[in-house]
Amino acid sequence: MKETPFKGIIAYPITPFTANGQVDLRLFRSLVERLVQSGAHGIAPLGSTGVLPYLKDEEKEAVTEAAIQQAGGRVPTLVGVSNLTTAQTIYHAQFAEKAGATAVMIIPMSYWKLTDEEIVSHFDAVASKISIPIMAYNNPATGGIDMSPALLKKLLQIPNVTMIKESTGDVQRMHTLRRELGDEVAFYNGSNPLALAAFAAGARGWCTAAPNLIPGLTMDLYAAVAANDLAAAQHVFMQQLDLLKFIVAKGLPRAIKTGLDLLGENGGELRKPLLPLTAAEKVELEQVLAQLSETA
Amino acid sequence: MKETPFKGIIAYPITPFTANGQVDLRLFRSLVERLVQSGAHGIAPLGSTGVLPYLKDEEKEAVTEAAIQQAGGRVPTLVGVSNLTTAQTIYHAQFAEKAGATAVMIIPMSYWKLTDEEIVSHFDAVASKISIPIMAYNNPATGGIDMSPALLKKLLQIPNVTMIKESTGDVQRMHTLRRELGDEVAFYNGSNPLALAAFAAGARGWCTAAPNLIPGLTMDLYAAVAANDLAAAQHVFMQQLDLLKFIVAKGLPRAIKTGLDLLGENGGELRKPLLPLTAAEKVELEQVLAQLSETA
Amino acid sequence: MKETPFKGIIAYPITPFTANGQVDLRLFRSLVERLVQSGAHGIAPLGSTGVLPYLKDEEKEAVTEAAIQQAGGRVPTLVGVSNLTTAQTIYHAQFAEKAGATAVMIIPMSYWKLTDEEIVSHFDAVASKISIPIMAYNNPATGGIDMSPALLKKLLQIPNVTMIKESTGDVQRMHTLRRELGDEVAFYNGSNPLALAAFAAGARGWCTAAPNLIPGLTMDLYAAVAANDLAAAQHVFMQQLDLLKFIVAKGLPRAIKTGLDLLGENGGELRKPLLPLTAAEKVELEQVLAQLSETA
Amino acid sequence: MKETPFKGIIAYPITPFTANGQVDLRLFRSLVERLVQSGAHGIAPLGSTGVLPYLKDEEKEAVTEAAIQQAGGRVPTLVGVSNLTTAQTIYHAQFAEKAGATAVMIIPMSYWKLTDEEIVSHFDAVASKISIPIMAYNNPATGGIDMSPALLKKLLQIPNVTMIKESTGDVQRMHTLRRELGDEVAFYNGSNPLALAAFAAGARGWCTAAPNLIPGLTMDLYAAVAANDLAAAQHVFMQQLDLLKFIVAKGLPRAIKTGLDLLGENGGELRKPLLPLTAAEKVELEQVLAQLSETA
Repeated sequence: MKETPFKGIIAYPITPFTANGQVDLRLFRSLVERLVQSGAHGIAPLGSTGVLPYLKDEEKEAVTEAAIQQAGGRVPTLVGVSNLTTAQTIYHAQFAEKAGATAVMIIPMSYWKLTDEEIVSHFDAVASKISIPIMAYNNPATGGIDMSPALLKKLLQIPNVTMIKESTGDVQRMHTLRRELGDEVAFYNGSNPLALAAFAAGARGWCTAAPNLIPGLTMDLYAAVAANDLAAAQHVFMQQLDLLKFIVAKGLPRAIKTGLDLLGENGGELRKPLLPLTAAEKVELEQVLAQLSETA
Repeated sequence: MKETPFKGIIAYPITPFTANGQVDLRLFRSLVERLVQSGAHGIAPLGSTGVLPYLKDEEKEAVTEAAIQQAGGRVPTLVGVSNLTTAQTIYHAQFAEKAGATAVMIIPMSYWKLTDEEIVSHFDAVASKISIPIMAYNNPATGGIDMSPALLKKLLQIPNVTMIKESTGDVQRMHTLRRELGDEVAFYNGSNPLALAAFAAGARGWCTAAPNLIPGLTMDLYAAVAANDLAAAQHVFMQQLDLLKFIVAKGLPRAIKTGLDLLGENGGELRKPLLPLTAAEKVELEQVLAQLSETA
Repeated sequence: MKETPFKGIIAYPITPFTANGQVDLRLFRSLVERLVQSGAHGIAPLGSTGVLPYLKDEEKEAVTEAAIQQAGGRVPTLVGVSNLTTAQTIYHAQFAEKAGATAVMIIPMSYWKLTDEEIVSHFDAVASKISIPIMAYNNPATGGIDMSPALLKKLLQIPNVTMIKESTGDVQRMHTLRRELGDEVAFYNGSNPLALAAFAAGARGWCTAAPNLIPGLTMDLYAAVAANDLAAAQHVFMQQLDLLKFIVAKGLPRAIKTGLDLLGENGGELRKPLLPLTAAEKVELEQVLAQLSETA
Repeated sequence: MKETPFKGIIAYPITPFTANGQVDLRLFRSLVERLVQSGAHGIAPLGSTGVLPYLKDEEKEAVTEAAIQQAGGRVPTLVGVSNLTTAQTIYHAQFAEKAGATAVMIIPMSYWKLTDEEIVSHFDAVASKISIPIMAYNNPATGGIDMSPALLKKLLQIPNVTMIKESTGDVQRMHTLRRELGDEVAFYNGSNPLALAAFAAGARGWCTAAPNLIPGLTMDLYAAVAANDLAAAQHVFMQQLDLLKFIVAKGLPRAIKTGLDLLGENGGELRKPLLPLTAAEKVELEQVLAQLSETA
């Protein structure tokens, strides 16, 4: 039986920076703490939300350690270790394992579009160097490659590749995954506006940055699905849909940072070239957040 | 309050032809009868499934009359009256109303991509000439135009445009429809592989040719949704998913005709240039149908 | 040796309508006369520009006869005879041949996406019923099907399919055509903004509605190419590019009709749902035409 | 007047690696020397071909210095300095300037899709820190962002952003660039199969890895264009088209490395996850190269 240590709401913290451009580790720890206390079922540092590719090696290491220590075993941790080269991916995967990560997440980043054979070799090489589970992450929009269900099936034959995160934003792809990989495949949804459809399609969990801003609504959605209450799930999903669409449309790091500021939390600074939301976008987000409180 | 006479499973019969290329009205009537007796909540002749654009005017009229007479008031009828020109669309819409149709369905067919203004004028002109409700049908894949939610909103301001059929195959579009048009908008799903996701998104009905081959499974899906039983809906949806994908991939008229033959019914002939499924495709469909019976 | 009776500028007249919605045959004849007298190397009635699919059978026949009679053998004629059904395509192809057309043009119109086998059967059936040459027309944007070079190769094996019109708007497709079909393949460009690139890629002619508005510039481009003068071709192409882009962006029938009106000619009326350009678009076209006269 | 130090064939060397995964600087220098001696009009290290994003900082620096020293002022050098973060882009741009680069090339790499404002700020920040010219590089396929002509226009208002490299593979985009930016804009083509069409559209140069394998044919194409001989340009372009398409389809680093090996040169090793061409692909390349010699 494959080890699949995640289900429910897997929360992605942002990586905040100080005014002079350094990772703000103290603030990062407090953001992780908020997510754990809000009831998230897992914590995933160094995702796209955590601007993994914009960090230097030593920054990635510090964030990895901080997240794992702060989680403190209360919830499992899923650490992003993707890198363009195989050698660097191995390096970071080994670091995460040693630091105590529950599992690592790997997207086959591409500048040159990788062949299926190159992707399998890449995962093979990394998997053979660690013993914790791997979540293979498919997100053509940010990673530049769309891994077919057939390719994902091959990756799942590697013993410690046990989970799939699917972010194409197409619910039909999830149906295909179940058909091709078996109803028992552990797949997770990474597309926020698809949250309800993905659970209806059998997703085991939802990988999302939304709990940074609306922890209650995200947990309630999962609870309604777990209780087999479709009507309640529809209701709570429609309540949060505008926010989910907004944070995706504007870019998660930008939207979450600003949303935290608006909620009276500290979202820290972004790393350039990423810039904060414009004034108009900030007003729009304020309105979306205000309407949530009314309907919730 | 807008009149929206459909909900549940709206079944689309094919238009069968005789060996010498004529519409086989007798067979058509028996196919409609099968759909009504199987429990379909509505009958929709002259859809894409019914190869509307391949028919001559007098053939369209004969099929319209046959469908309405055969339904005999037991279930409501939704007659396709789309045409490239506004004048011909009016002509067929008036014919359908006079023949007793419950409502008509109109897709803004395009050879030259229509502007929003042209589409509104087109619907306006038709709507002003009839008094039965109109379902505006959005299907970029066959119609060549993707009507935005903003445009659909404008169409719904026309008094007897009361329903929307959405077939982009993107569940997020359905969420947007609810957001932009209000939770009470009467929208129907026309994308078979999205059936469950669309109901989860609030679709009032499912416009589908699948009941020609699997009436029980399609009605069971709607029943599970109506009973707020998500787990049951998932189960029955996954049972029929392979067939839904097959009939869409191969083209509904071809796949339904062959499927009827395989089930021991008579699917009649197709009109050229449409050809029957190849021998290999027929075997594939046979297997899909056989697996249904096992799992069902 | 295959018979390929066209080269250079093949001009597409619009089909003008009277105020009460009838085809204005007298105006049509005068528009054809203008094109012939302006030096066009061929006349192509009932193309997309001529709103073929919006016409009734008897209208198509009248337009066919009018165009051929007006050309009067001074230039070859290429008559559009495409139809959704094979039977009707045969009917119109036979009519065109009998009326004296030099060749016919056929796009595999699709509502249901046709398989390669269906397309080959369709062309085969039509070709066997006439003896004049056929131009196979590929235009995914209006026809709904993108015929691959491999499929076009199969079509060219039918004896009287001798020419290809390519309108994907991708010059690389033209290179591929030459590679797969041989340097001697007779292919024609149907994408206005690609006119220069297509000639550079070896196109034998340019199928275009632009001569309705700018006959001189279009003939000059062909002359420069024929004289192997790349610099002159570049110059005259850049002079007309804004107009070429405008008429494509706005839809050829709408833009040509309005352009004729602006030039002091009579463009007739459009058939609904097609509407004339808006006032703002008309001003824009006026400016584009004015700048041409300055630069030309 | 803006400084635009490139025209003609700008050759992109690969970055070769040793068997143990280190950059092979000696081999790199000899590959640069080959390109210079073959008549290339410029040398561009650390492009996509040179696998820039797969290198560590110190490797990028060593390659930069090696290329500039080897070119030795015989031809201008264009050094790729793109990086996800603004800070690192500035760092490498300053390094290149100090090392003696003629100009730098910058693509706005994106993991998170950048807004126009972010892109302008990014180029602004880098441009203000160096005084050599910048070529702004648009390549949605590898960079993940498609910079509109309007955005490129804004970038060209920065004093030392003087050149544009356009790699969307769409010749119409090049026409638009000339229209929106003025006929005198210095734009360069980065899409190999568009080489002829781009010159016909007014491109000042061709940024290409092809000279590594077919230096003579690439220089001959430019010579024919410069001599205003369209027929000769067509002839020499069609001779090399199959190779151009092959190297693009297979990925430039893979295809150039293997091609060099086949030509009896040393292509070095690739860095994982990139793998060499498969045996079948190698045979295919061998045939393409053999046919070139026959036709050349």
